[in-house]
Amino acid sequence: RSFATAARQSLKVGLIPADGIGREVIPAARRTLEALGSDIPKLQFVDLDAGFELFTKTGTALPEETVQALKECDCALFGAVSSPSRKVTGYSSPIVALRKELDLYANIRPVAAVAENPEDKPNVDLVVVRENTECLYVKQEVLTPGEHGLEARATRLITERASRRIGKMAFEIALGRPRKQVTIIHKSNVLSVTDGLFRQTIRDIPQASEGRYDGVKLEEQIVDSAVYRLFREPQIYDVMVAPNLYGDIISDAAAALVGSLGLVPSVNAGDNFVMGEPVHGSAPDIEGRGIANPLAAIRSAALMLRHLNYAAAADRIDKAVNEVIREGQVLTPDLGGSSKTEEVLDAVLKRL
Amino acid sequence: RSFATAARQSLKVGLIPADGIGREVIPAARRTLEALGSDIPKLQFVDLDAGFELFTKTGTALPEETVQALKECDCALFGAVSSPSRKVTGYSSPIVALRKELDLYANIRPVAAVAENPEDKPNVDLVVVRENTECLYVKQEVLTPGEHGLEARATRLITERASRRIGKMAFEIALGRPRKQVTIIHKSNVLSVTDGLFRQTIRDIPQASEGRYDGVKLEEQIVDSAVYRLFREPQIYDVMVAPNLYGDIISDAAAALVGSLGLVPSVNAGDNFVMGEPVHGSAPDIEGRGIANPLAAIRSAALMLRHLNYAAAADRIDKAVNEVIREGQVLTPDLGGSSKTEEVLDAVLKRL
Ligand SMILES: CC(C)[C@H](C(=O)O)[C@@H](O)C(=O)O
Ligand SMILES: CC(C)[C@H](C(=O)O)[C@@H](O)C(=O)O
Repeated sequence: RSFATAARQSLKVGLIPADGIGREVIPAARRTLEALGSDIPKLQFVDLDAGFELFTKTGTALPEETVQALKECDCALFGAVSSPSRKVTGYSSPIVALRKELDLYANIRPVAAVAENPEDKPNVDLVVVRENTECLYVKQEVLTPGEHGLEARATRLITERASRRIGKMAFEIALGRPRKQVTIIHKSNVLSVTDGLFRQTIRDIPQASEGRYDGVKLEEQIVDSAVYRLFREPQIYDVMVAPNLYGDIISDAAAALVGSLGLVPSVNAGDNFVMGEPVHGSAPDIEGRGIANPLAAIRSAALMLRHLNYAAAADRIDKAVNEVIREGQVLTPDLGGSSKTEEVLDAVLKRL
Repeated sequence: RSFATAARQSLKVGLIPADGIGREVIPAARRTLEALGSDIPKLQFVDLDAGFELFTKTGTALPEETVQALKECDCALFGAVSSPSRKVTGYSSPIVALRKELDLYANIRPVAAVAENPEDKPNVDLVVVRENTECLYVKQEVLTPGEHGLEARATRLITERASRRIGKMAFEIALGRPRKQVTIIHKSNVLSVTDGLFRQTIRDIPQASEGRYDGVKLEEQIVDSAVYRLFREPQIYDVMVAPNLYGDIISDAAAALVGSLGLVPSVNAGDNFVMGEPVHGSAPDIEGRGIANPLAAIRSAALMLRHLNYAAAADRIDKAVNEVIREGQVLTPDLGGSSKTEEVLDAVLKRL
């Protein structure tokens, strides 16, 4: 799940706030990292451009320099991208492109409620492990004239290789959790070939693991009923592993259970790079008002550190964030509070 | 939304219980129809076979005779199909096939909570209008060997024609509701061609309607955030129109909001035929125990009648079902009660 701890002299972090509230929450995550002091190597930040607004100004949503610069970084934090409100020729989502360019094949999204009492088990405590490079996100689409008007076709790609590596990631993550349960999310009752391959490939992993995954319980759920049960009995889930699009939908659904998308972090992880990213979007409705919830971005920074094997530093952040949520005094409007982004950040920093 | 009321002498209803609790709830729906008396034409029932169990016995999930017999019926009720627990060569879901064979292009799924007081507005009152013939359900899948193992590809088809007719259906349904709002569910920030076509085709409908849809408010939501907001603020939705797979997921998600999948009805509707179908599955875990909730099937019968223009009869059923739910005395275990299917049916019949 995490990289070897080659003792690093410094940590080079690419920062891509991109659009909307991405520009408000990424600076908060940065300041949290800076406040960690000697728990992590000396930080070096690299400011990088991408996003829909950049596209409208320059015609490019993801400049080649950004991709190249990221390759020189140890890790990165990404904010959020706006979606064009109508079809814009030549525009393609930079976050989807980055995941592919850097082969960040796993999108790891832990969704956990904060129990009132720190000793209690939260009622929601799951991780969505979303395949991040294929499914309908390969964006192979064609438009052709047909007998009765236009016809559009998209390809949904599922490979054995990608299914196996995301499955292994899910098993590894499950090994590190008390319940040690993996639930495969699929729709193989309709997509018997593509989702059939996804499901069977993951089912076959334990056998080839030389006993490593013997303690992991393997379950499965069809995606529609998985979402239904997620709302009704979220406690049945531990690690949910899903193809790209189902993972996208499920993680938003799970976020609704813990009070706000503004709380849910993620990392996009590959074998050599990790990029933190809050699960929320660019939120054009509240952009620029200083009331965006910085906690998802701050938690994404923690998750990124955890992935780089700085568990103690990550724990410090998570503990501080959980305290702020538990105390309930300094919260942004999405959580029913009236505090500003800055005030929430300060509350976290004080508890670090 | 509904067929011309060519005064029918009799109503020929195909019954396809199929698998699992389908066999327990379809008889309950039949008995409800039979209890309506002179509000509807003389009923004639035709028992028909289909399902996964039939497949395991005979090698056919949907016999040609069933399809032919349905073509002689005025309408039908379908129960539920079991999903094979592993890949079964040659098996393909009969419900998906039926929707296509009979060109039942719209899957209409009203999801409404029953307010405590009959005068109050329920907090959830929406209709999912799901395109029912294409998207990934065209089941064009191929498996090929690749450089790093197997590769599977599925085609997602979205046509202008199907998008327009489902869009029109959504507008028509909205016209008949107090809020008159249609929300297009899509993911055109990633699938700019396929979902772009779906979205744009529906956006273009009002212009070509000669004013018919002027009073309908048109909104849109990206599918992941649509599911999030469905949980957080279901009252923002009235009519949700969606491509096939999103519609499948959204309707299950919405069902979670009203207490049980066992309450949510649907019809599969085409221009010449309508087939009621509870949204729930075959529920192998409770099959044969006589505790399946018959209300979704009973409501599906009402919805079918409504579609055939027997609104008064449909209203009688819906009112009786709502009373049973509101009273809360006779409910199956999925709703926290301890009554049997038969008892719930009797309670409905008594209130008809
Ligand atoms: C913005 C969009 C392309 C993206 C996705 O669909 O992956 C977002 O919803 C997410 O979950 O990160
Ligand atoms: C059983 C399955 C093929 C079906 C579907 O996916 O359409 C079911 O989930 C439904 O919603 O009717």
